[in-house]
Amino acid sequence: MESGDGEVVSNKQVIFKDYVPGALKESDMYITTSTIKLKVPEDCTNGVLVKNLYLSCDPYMRNRMRKLQGSYIAPLNPGSPICGRGVAKVLDSRHPDYKKGDFIWAMTGWEEYSLITATETIFKIHDKDVPLSYYIGILGMPGLTAYAGFYEICSPKKGEFVFISAASGAVGQLVGQFAKLLGCYVVGSAGSKDKSEFWVKEGIVCSSASERYGASSAADCPESILITYVHGLHQFPRLPIAISNIVYVDLLKNKFGFDDAFNYKEEMDLDAALKRYFPDGIDIYFENVGGNMLDAVLLNMRVRGRISVCGMVSQYNIEQPEGVHNLMSLVPKRIRMEGFLVYDYFQLFPKYLDMVLPYIKQGKIVYVEDIAEGLENAPAALIGLFNGRNIGKQVVAVSRE
Amino acid sequence: MESGDGEVVSNKQVIFKDYVPGALKESDMYITTSTIKLKVPEDCTNGVLVKNLYLSCDPYMRNRMRKLQGSYIAPLNPGSPICGRGVAKVLDSRHPDYKKGDFIWAMTGWEEYSLITATETIFKIHDKDVPLSYYIGILGMPGLTAYAGFYEICSPKKGEFVFISAASGAVGQLVGQFAKLLGCYVVGSAGSKDKSEFWVKEGIVCSSASERYGASSAADCPESILITYVHGLHQFPRLPIAISNIVYVDLLKNKFGFDDAFNYKEEMDLDAALKRYFPDGIDIYFENVGGNMLDAVLLNMRVRGRISVCGMVSQYNIEQPEGVHNLMSLVPKRIRMEGFLVYDYFQLFPKYLDMVLPYIKQGKIVYVEDIAEGLENAPAALIGLFNGRNIGKQVVAVSRE
Repeated sequence: MESGDGEVVSNKQVIFKDYVPGALKESDMYITTSTIKLKVPEDCTNGVLVKNLYLSCDPYMRNRMRKLQGSYIAPLNPGSPICGRGVAKVLDSRHPDYKKGDFIWAMTGWEEYSLITATETIFKIHDKDVPLSYYIGILGMPGLTAYAGFYEICSPKKGEFVFISAASGAVGQLVGQFAKLLGCYVVGSAGSKDKSEFWVKEGIVCSSASERYGASSAADCPESILITYVHGLHQFPRLPIAISNIVYVDLLKNKFGFDDAFNYKEEMDLDAALKRYFPDGIDIYFENVGGNMLDAVLLNMRVRGRISVCGMVSQYNIEQPEGVHNLMSLVPKRIRMEGFLVYDYFQLFPKYLDMVLPYIKQGKIVYVEDIAEGLENAPAALIGLFNGRNIGKQVVAVSRE
Repeated sequence: MESGDGEVVSNKQVIFKDYVPGALKESDMYITTSTIKLKVPEDCTNGVLVKNLYLSCDPYMRNRMRKLQGSYIAPLNPGSPICGRGVAKVLDSRHPDYKKGDFIWAMTGWEEYSLITATETIFKIHDKDVPLSYYIGILGMPGLTAYAGFYEICSPKKGEFVFISAASGAVGQLVGQFAKLLGCYVVGSAGSKDKSEFWVKEGIVCSSASERYGASSAADCPESILITYVHGLHQFPRLPIAISNIVYVDLLKNKFGFDDAFNYKEEMDLDAALKRYFPDGIDIYFENVGGNMLDAVLLNMRVRGRISVCGMVSQYNIEQPEGVHNLMSLVPKRIRMEGFLVYDYFQLFPKYLDMVLPYIKQGKIVYVEDIAEGLENAPAALIGLFNGRNIGKQVVAVSRE
């Protein structure tokens, strides 16, 4: 039911139990079913009632599940549905800007239907020639994050050496493609133990965790995956690690067009790995992971290098962050290291969309999503971010509407 | 003998033994006496033979005593005199720009007399109305370091909250005074166990390590020292710790005009101390020490704060640098952290001198030096930098000429 005629329907929800200091586990969330009337209550001026289609799993969400005071973003309420960005269809509205049948993206709940009252977070979707889920990815916050973090913070120049960690993630894959379009030399790292578990099912590359699908169809697959497929390995659910690593590096090189890529889980010595991929050093590091990788990068930066600190996903799910020991490198190398939040760059959104939409339509920029099917798989999908399980932007499909 | 008539005289030297990975000790240097002819050899085109007056002890020198490859500055040669900046008098010259009787500052040796061949490091001293030792302090590299690191890297604005570590050192005392002149709120930290050992001798405040003198005469002393003196404590060589802490904080507040100051050795919890001195947070941190202090500062920075990384003196004399755990603060607070080297700002020297010389002569900026007497005390003076023993710019007086 989604006619907005005020029927009461069941509403499956993912509830956040309580604040977690250390590693977030699936058991810190639970699935429940309540009911909802598919009509905005009369006393709820400007409310918008939506059917959720795609929900976004983002690393920053982990910090809302911690009892942090004075953070830039409020903690979640224990006992309530998890809150995050999503793409949704309007079923009923008391807001003059949105009407039944509109597609929007906004801060919404991890549930089938949501009543959105913080309507300032709503953006109407006008261009429906692209997958709707892109509006929580390349056409949403991750896209603008990559754009602002690369162009505004890194001051990139043609020919510079660019390194990106978490390079297959929602933001990293775009930074690398932007850098290539500018004429930089680009290497990405990614990888994890969990990512070594892939299979091919119905012609689609899958990672094992919750049998969720990668976005690539067999036709889009890099050659090594196709070979795997053609050779019939899809009959054996688990691929050997070596093959999954090929998949991984191939994704960065052949799909995103990076100059090179490596699986950091295969490198015993990150400093040595970086020296191999960047014998002349790194001009720009787009920092997504923190910890040991940052320490190794600091040893390999070039003079007047720039480090754009987007996040440190390796550190979010541990109680005490790892120590970074090589900050002294900042001085002799005159390195600038700068953190940023995408919220400061909203004014660039129109300019960004003007740039990126044609690139998408011309196939000059691609975007890989890792789509978990159904709210039941949402907790595992969120946790997977911190173990590097996702290949591409992690999305939860609530309904394909 | 200093007539430059070619006489051969004895030349006391401080020799660097060999590369040291961990803590530098006095025994890593030794005093010896060789001879030198007080004339530039005929085959030494452009050479300048000098009598050294004041030698500079700087934290960066520690890194030349380590076998670092690819550093921005070459390692010292084991078995040779230590090399650093000094103020000297020309005894003989084959260089057209310098003549006998000139005073200069340059890269020179830790010895009584040096033959300078790297003449591109020589600056002639024109203004002799100020103490000559200032040319390795406020009128030399430390001065330009403070100027560039504060004005160029921090982008300071009137009314901002400025925190300076190692605030009584060669650079820190100046940054604080520049910030006060601009109208900032300034707090400095300094302190060490060793600094708790003071005495007053002949009306002058001394610290104990090698009985070297602080630059302040009794007439310049903050009140607490005078009280100590008047009460006759100079008869008892060691002051109680509490009194020495007063000396210390008074130096920063009353001599340099900081708004507040604290002895970090007295603070069990640096985060709590910073919250006490900066209840509204820190806009600008002038980083001289690294390690735990940086970690605490990161928790107390304001949104869009700037950290100018001048050095990390607490880390130079330990084998494995401490880990910094709170770098994640860079992201939500959009902090910019930037390392710099004074060598990049030589072009600002004339502008800097134009600003600072009048301030010195008007008494609007003061400069405190910690002068060790004689080459014999030079090794202890250098090591003292890393234990925070110095009060003010650490100088070695070779000769008062």
